[in-house]
Amino acid sequence: MKRDVPYKTYLAENEIPTQWYNVRADMKNKPAPLLNPGTLEPMKAEELYPVFCEELVKQELDNDTPFFDIPQEILDFYYMYRPSPLVRAYFLEKALDTPAKIYYKFEGNNTSGSHKLNSAIAQAYYAKKQGLKGVTTETGAGQWGTALSMACAYFDLDCQVYMVKCSYEQKPFRREVMRTYGAKVTPSPSMTTQIGQKILKEHPGTTGSLGCAISEAVEVAVGSEGYRYVLGSVLSQVLLHQSVIGLEAKAAFDKLGVKPDMIIGCAGGGSNLGGLISPFMGEKLRGEADYQIIAIEPASCPSLTRGKYAYDFCDTGMVCPLAKMYTLGSDFIPSANHAGGLRYHGMSSILSQLYDDGLMEARSVEQTSVFEAATQFARVEGILPAPESSHAIRAAIDEALKCKETGEEKTILFGLTGTGYFDLVAYEKYNEGSMSDYIPTDADLEKSLSKLPKVDK
Amino acid sequence: MKRDVPYKTYLAENEIPTQWYNVRADMKNKPAPLLNPGTLEPMKAEELYPVFCEELVKQELDNDTPFFDIPQEILDFYYMYRPSPLVRAYFLEKALDTPAKIYYKFEGNNTSGSHKLNSAIAQAYYAKKQGLKGVTTETGAGQWGTALSMACAYFDLDCQVYMVKCSYEQKPFRREVMRTYGAKVTPSPSMTTQIGQKILKEHPGTTGSLGCAISEAVEVAVGSEGYRYVLGSVLSQVLLHQSVIGLEAKAAFDKLGVKPDMIIGCAGGGSNLGGLISPFMGEKLRGEADYQIIAIEPASCPSLTRGKYAYDFCDTGMVCPLAKMYTLGSDFIPSANHAGGLRYHGMSSILSQLYDDGLMEARSVEQTSVFEAATQFARVEGILPAPESSHAIRAAIDEALKCKETGEEKTILFGLTGTGYFDLVAYEKYNEGSMSDYIPTDADLEKSLSKLPKVDK
Repeated sequence: MKRDVPYKTYLAENEIPTQWYNVRADMKNKPAPLLNPGTLEPMKAEELYPVFCEELVKQELDNDTPFFDIPQEILDFYYMYRPSPLVRAYFLEKALDTPAKIYYKFEGNNTSGSHKLNSAIAQAYYAKKQGLKGVTTETGAGQWGTALSMACAYFDLDCQVYMVKCSYEQKPFRREVMRTYGAKVTPSPSMTTQIGQKILKEHPGTTGSLGCAISEAVEVAVGSEGYRYVLGSVLSQVLLHQSVIGLEAKAAFDKLGVKPDMIIGCAGGGSNLGGLISPFMGEKLRGEADYQIIAIEPASCPSLTRGKYAYDFCDTGMVCPLAKMYTLGSDFIPSANHAGGLRYHGMSSILSQLYDDGLMEARSVEQTSVFEAATQFARVEGILPAPESSHAIRAAIDEALKCKETGEEKTILFGLTGTGYFDLVAYEKYNEGSMSDYIPTDADLEKSLSKLPKVDK
Repeated sequence: MKRDVPYKTYLAENEIPTQWYNVRADMKNKPAPLLNPGTLEPMKAEELYPVFCEELVKQELDNDTPFFDIPQEILDFYYMYRPSPLVRAYFLEKALDTPAKIYYKFEGNNTSGSHKLNSAIAQAYYAKKQGLKGVTTETGAGQWGTALSMACAYFDLDCQVYMVKCSYEQKPFRREVMRTYGAKVTPSPSMTTQIGQKILKEHPGTTGSLGCAISEAVEVAVGSEGYRYVLGSVLSQVLLHQSVIGLEAKAAFDKLGVKPDMIIGCAGGGSNLGGLISPFMGEKLRGEADYQIIAIEPASCPSLTRGKYAYDFCDTGMVCPLAKMYTLGSDFIPSANHAGGLRYHGMSSILSQLYDDGLMEARSVEQTSVFEAATQFARVEGILPAPESSHAIRAAIDEALKCKETGEEKTILFGLTGTGYFDLVAYEKYNEGSMSDYIPTDADLEKSLSKLPKVDK
């Protein structure tokens, strides 16, 4: 096979970025501030300290500092599984017979199976540095919980994970990986919290929800000496940590002397997409370069393409601050969708603002077409992709096929966030032809959007 | 963390070996030839052609050619997931507080989750080149079947996998990965073969065995136009293909200016160990260097440490050629042992001869101590290891702890063959404290060894 660049490009260890990039510093329109759900005033740092680690609160609220040094302890851990490769998808290009040049940044080569580890290790580090005993969190699909368990094992921190009960029961292997890394995994709702007890009393037999698990994790963090709550997506601090993906990708492209025309990423809460596009968006914001940037979301949970840009609750329990974001309403419950990591009702404030400013596009894709792309990709590129990542694959294939029609030699970069080793129930459904698509009706969305909180900002 | 070499060393794509190394060429005492089970005469190439691809038969019988060019089509596929990293286990060294320098060659970063892909792609290539329609094989734990499915998908070959029924039922996810890559997976014994029908009639309700699955796969290959049988371990051709592991490791060490003192690998049929040690053993055989080489096997299936060096059947159905090897008897059934890839009753003829000549050592380790090592490794090095690979981890840790006592700064290399993502039932047992050890009694072994075929060679 003729190759003008290597199939995989790895940076050397001393080329791994030593600073995170904060895209907010280059945004003319900053993301709207978090609001106190009681006073509807912007949250002050002190109000967030009982919930989040202090250093992370500072990162969360900082719209101005362009670069943050990555502490050496985090860099050491990064060396364990980074650099991740920038892969030229020669085999996929050949299968599609396209003139497009397709690249992907692959974040799945670690035990968490996804990019989540990039932020987990940062959040665990700051918790350790603050002298905490441990952290609490929630997990749905389980990638974030696994990543946090690994990070906490490394820093010898206690890790308490509230796992949505239906996932806990359907994904015993995910739970077992977390236990192997020493985490305490509790199916949510549980009797260990007041909110859990309340929900179980009102809805006996419920299999839980992400919103409920968040509420339990926050309750335990706030109520326990030496604990804080951590979150794997949506927050601006998470996008800051995930900027390592984009910075590495950009450094690898620079080494190859290549510039992508188009950057595609799947979008749930926005952690992967926000991280991948950060340095490219920075260039775009500063007028140094232009890129077409596309967020891909599931048609079953289309916050950017069909949601409303408004203040909303981050959790169904309504205990967290309000965030201004593209949202379907915190009441929105996406139906059967195997891309568990893309089921969040809202979108990162940073990405919401960039989208609202016309700096990026968004599209939604349907589940069966996503698995069709996933299977095609697996067979030619060898990697079994996570359902979440496969949303980006679908769009990249579609774009490459457009190039085939027009003859354009576009250079496409997409984020391959993770592997699908723990998603084989979904693959089984697809292989057996029993997978279906679901698109919420306008009435569904009107209903959940009608319950947005009234905020004049 | 202070590092005198990088945490991970990747060769560049143009440094990946372009030839396999055949260690038999440098062996003074060649491995004993395969025998025809009917005549007890050495198998001729023509006799093997109905079962195996012609090019592979030539590789199997060639004790003299030191190097074989790797065809470009196979190299292209290697680029998809190779080079694999040579990792310096700084975090493990720190946790053990040892002066030893520990390295591991990690083969798990591909969807098959193990080194098996190295030989699968070679065997699929030669089948395709010969114009075949497809191949058949058996799989126990599922790593080999997955690897072969991936290779066949790449070359558009039909792939029929007979999966031991108990694994088929206990590991539905492995099965599903194979199906995603287009393989046809049949639980064995099945009604699709005469031998399967016979066994089901005699033992209704049996959950199958590797020996039976081999017999079914061979029957289908021999009886179907355009099909051949392929095998993932034991055979000399497999060790040839797997030499890419050792060649890459050696090239990486040479780049670093480091020479290992000790090389450790787990041993089931011998594919990983044989591949890893090949070039080092070559130097040892040629008197150019010396290395301590140690095979690690499970105490529950101790072919090298407690078996007999004799001709034996390769399968329980006794349809395959006889091989001279360290064996526990083809009748030996290892009891509950989660390292499914290390349950074979015999050992590669090449490794058996090298061991018999005193060129390598062997040790056996017990399952619970293996999972203890696996868990410790996972927590500090981030990778969740396969149970098979964890046998090598156990021994490497033990050697590093000896160095701590003696103060020696030995350089240890071990093979980390794969990941444990599909072995979480075993991890669960270990986490819950319900895992037990099993060591066959002398009487058990006498019984199975008493049935060795009578061969005067």
